[in-house]
Amino acid sequence: MTVIEQLRAALGDIVDTDSAALEACRGDRSGHMASGAPLAIVHALTVEHVQQVCRIATETRTPIVVRGAGTGLAGGANAGSGEIVLSTARMTAVHEIRTDDLLAVVEPGILNADLNDMLAPHGLWWAPDPASRSISTVGGNIATGAGGLLCAKYGVVRDAVLGVDLVLADGRLLHLGHRSVKGVTGLDLTSLVIGSEGVLGVIVGATLKLRRLVEGTTCTIAATFPGVRTAAAASAAVTAAGIQPAIMELMDAASLAAVASLLGLPSPPSGTAQLTIQTDGPAAAAEADAVVAVLTAHDGVVQVSHDREEGERLLTIRRSMHPAMAALGTTLIEDVSVPRSAMPAMFDEIARIEREYALTIPTVAHAGDGNLHPNFIFEGPETPPHVWAAADALFRAAIALGGTLTGEHGIGTLKSRWLAEELGADQWEIQRQVARVFDPLGILNQGKVFAAHA
Amino acid sequence: MTVIEQLRAALGDIVDTDSAALEACRGDRSGHMASGAPLAIVHALTVEHVQQVCRIATETRTPIVVRGAGTGLAGGANAGSGEIVLSTARMTAVHEIRTDDLLAVVEPGILNADLNDMLAPHGLWWAPDPASRSISTVGGNIATGAGGLLCAKYGVVRDAVLGVDLVLADGRLLHLGHRSVKGVTGLDLTSLVIGSEGVLGVIVGATLKLRRLVEGTTCTIAATFPGVRTAAAASAAVTAAGIQPAIMELMDAASLAAVASLLGLPSPPSGTAQLTIQTDGPAAAAEADAVVAVLTAHDGVVQVSHDREEGERLLTIRRSMHPAMAALGTTLIEDVSVPRSAMPAMFDEIARIEREYALTIPTVAHAGDGNLHPNFIFEGPETPPHVWAAADALFRAAIALGGTLTGEHGIGTLKSRWLAEELGADQWEIQRQVARVFDPLGILNQGKVFAAHA
Ligand SMILES: Cc1cc2nc3c(=O)[nH]c(=O)nc-3n(C[C@H](O)[C@H](O)[C@H](O)COP(=O)(O)OP(=O)(O)OC[C@H]3O[C@@H](n4cnc5c(N)ncnc54)[C@H](O)[C@@H]3O)c2cc1C
Ligand SMILES: Cc1cc2nc3c(=O)[nH]c(=O)nc-3n(C[C@H](O)[C@H](O)[C@H](O)COP(=O)(O)OP(=O)(O)OC[C@H]3O[C@@H](n4cnc5c(N)ncnc54)[C@H](O)[C@@H]3O)c2cc1C
Repeated sequence: MTVIEQLRAALGDIVDTDSAALEACRGDRSGHMASGAPLAIVHALTVEHVQQVCRIATETRTPIVVRGAGTGLAGGANAGSGEIVLSTARMTAVHEIRTDDLLAVVEPGILNADLNDMLAPHGLWWAPDPASRSISTVGGNIATGAGGLLCAKYGVVRDAVLGVDLVLADGRLLHLGHRSVKGVTGLDLTSLVIGSEGVLGVIVGATLKLRRLVEGTTCTIAATFPGVRTAAAASAAVTAAGIQPAIMELMDAASLAAVASLLGLPSPPSGTAQLTIQTDGPAAAAEADAVVAVLTAHDGVVQVSHDREEGERLLTIRRSMHPAMAALGTTLIEDVSVPRSAMPAMFDEIARIEREYALTIPTVAHAGDGNLHPNFIFEGPETPPHVWAAADALFRAAIALGGTLTGEHGIGTLKSRWLAEELGADQWEIQRQVARVFDPLGILNQGKVFAAHA
Repeated sequence: MTVIEQLRAALGDIVDTDSAALEACRGDRSGHMASGAPLAIVHALTVEHVQQVCRIATETRTPIVVRGAGTGLAGGANAGSGEIVLSTARMTAVHEIRTDDLLAVVEPGILNADLNDMLAPHGLWWAPDPASRSISTVGGNIATGAGGLLCAKYGVVRDAVLGVDLVLADGRLLHLGHRSVKGVTGLDLTSLVIGSEGVLGVIVGATLKLRRLVEGTTCTIAATFPGVRTAAAASAAVTAAGIQPAIMELMDAASLAAVASLLGLPSPPSGTAQLTIQTDGPAAAAEADAVVAVLTAHDGVVQVSHDREEGERLLTIRRSMHPAMAALGTTLIEDVSVPRSAMPAMFDEIARIEREYALTIPTVAHAGDGNLHPNFIFEGPETPPHVWAAADALFRAAIALGGTLTGEHGIGTLKSRWLAEELGADQWEIQRQVARVFDPLGILNQGKVFAAHA
């Protein structure tokens, strides 16, 4: 029997070989595609389905690509010739919501926003809020260690998972972690799985750590600055002043201009950069006052709203970044992260790279935690070599400033060639060996993350 | 050359073979001792010293026990015949304190309280606050994944480390993590090292995530209850009401009576249990009011103080638990953790175990996060078999309630025989193999954590 026949015999009509569906699995939202189309997609509905796919893949030595919603930006879910796509997107059940213990037990395929819609009536939420929250799965969020707009104050996925159920490449099921908030029993494999991008196993369930919905008003502040360096310095000054905004987003001039053009807004004066800041909780108004004082002292022209809906309107500009970039051409969204105080220096480096490579690199940043998304724009499906060269310079600059080449999107296929450089050869080798403990045959997400380096 | 001669030749007089010093390294604060005394203690002062010890140990296949301050409660730092004690207690430098980036770069030997004394003038603190904070090292805190009184609100070590420098058993140095608050570059080995109890490598440096000192008043509430179950239900109700105290400590009747006797206080009415709760930050007073309402509704007799010093006096009763137990005999301090809502049920289980094994088990709990410390008291240095049998029943009960056998003290030597039962054979084996990637010869903390199981 061929692999597809074996899958069909074991799993029936959840095995999908529709050519349009297969074609769609070649890429994620990075714009990059695997060469060739995968063998089949299995739309797993149960843990047992996942285990069966893994057993067949192990027996037949067939590589598996694990896939959630495919909104990733690192090519991690891209599947090519000879591979099985194992989709957890249809495992969407929420088994338990506990208000007293602030936890939920969920399947991996539920969309982040759908989960939060279910939690809201209980006065609860799961804090990780990638901008893709309405289209990405919780399993994908865990696998990538996703961040979001609110994470400087409320934490990233790493801070919000108590336990994970993991199916290994050979089909065995591990229950990692526990339901108690504390526990140091053996090695913390739950943390290891967070951000592991599918190379350790398939996440088939998770016990999530919830928060109570934040009460009180929300204040939104939008401030424009004569240049991005000033805006970056102002945002660093907000953090240094001891204020903890819920959201602090920075847009450089090119980003702001692109969004203005997309939304049909009047174009801002040349060079204008913007900070959008939101404070929340019991001290929201007092914190907003403190923010305004810092921004004004840093040459910001400030606009404040105490109304939640008006605040959302101010944030729409930031949220329109992705479509604004898409309107300009193909986009490579980068994701470097640096210590907050190094943000102005990182913007200097971006300006230098723009000059050296004759590129415009519109950049937005989760300024509250030093995570920048420089966008490279080009024509056609393939990232041109000089763009990769500029991205290379960008990564080196971030690492030299004490940062890292990916703050929240992951390594996937797109950044694996830089991984060893950041980790060092010894750590790279240890990490790869750790992955081999979980997946000795290297069946899961083959060639991703730890693709051999030169 | 013998191993000691090799160490002396390479490292000179930081190699200590004083017999009293060696004898002291046989035990930690669990009261348990290794059989026989170790070969030598190396008081490392530099990373290079640590590397040299590891190289010699690897060449000569000599086991190493890593030791901080030796305040551990799981026998993890206990060293016996034929072993080298590698002490990081004298590596105490603080290399950097950054107010803007909320981070500090430290050596592992600095005591937790000394570090916080250095941070305070900067308006900063490192949140993990084990009750042993004035006598335990930051390296030991990281190696055990320590918690403390404040951790329900402010997090445990796992939430407070950005990066770790780790020397492997063969002497290689890895730099794990980064200085940026965000980063998902490869596998999260920093998290894996937290709580790894010295089996992955020697922590020789750490980049710590700091918080700003909390401003505003502190309110302290002490409440007595007719029984421990009522007190546990009241504390679960505080969490369920959405209030987040900074501290919420529970003492059962036997604990309270023992402390009263130690401190010469009037003895409380028979069966009386106590909750001590502290609220802090801008909403401290309002939260204290809410706490009082919940406690009163649960039959608590409540006393409130808005004065910080008076509050410390109220907490003294809780802080005197350890000496009060020591006054009664040899103590085995257990450390189970359960979901907060399961605390009343866990106290029922403890009552059952007391009856079945004819023991009194004075118990305190970090009630804000469901972490209980049942104390077994006996005569003489060895834990009697029926106490281990009762502890075994305790662990099973905690696991059955969705919890774990150690919330913050770790596995060490004392609990390794229960580890496989909680993890399951498959996960136990995966964890052991992961450890072997870091330390293929099994030289570090041999026989600890992953001691072979039946
Ligand atoms: C408009 C837009 C905005 C975005 N904003 C953010 C943002 O603010 N923050 C952020 O962090 N990311 C953001 N992203 C990136 C992306 O949404 C996240 O990486 C998300 O977590 C991916 O989830 P997914 O379900 O789409 O996973 P996929 O793209 O399907 O997969 C991502 C990776 O996870 C693995 N994986 C998926 N499911 C599982 C599973 N069940 N078990 C094991 N491995 C699995 C895959 O193999 C792959 O390596 C954005 C993307 C878009 C398109
Ligand atoms: C009175 C008292 C109260 C306590 N209260 C608490 C509490 O509230 N919360 C809590 O969590 N614990 C508590 N403890 C336990 C103990 O203090 C902690 O486990 C502490 O983190 C141990 O630090 P240490 O420096 O003494 O480490 P040690 O006891 O020396 O070592 C502990 C473990 O860590 C390893 N280790 C130490 N240093 C390193 C290093 N540099 N690299 C690699 N591995 C290393 C050792 O090998 C050992 O396995 C308490 C202990 C006492 C005596």
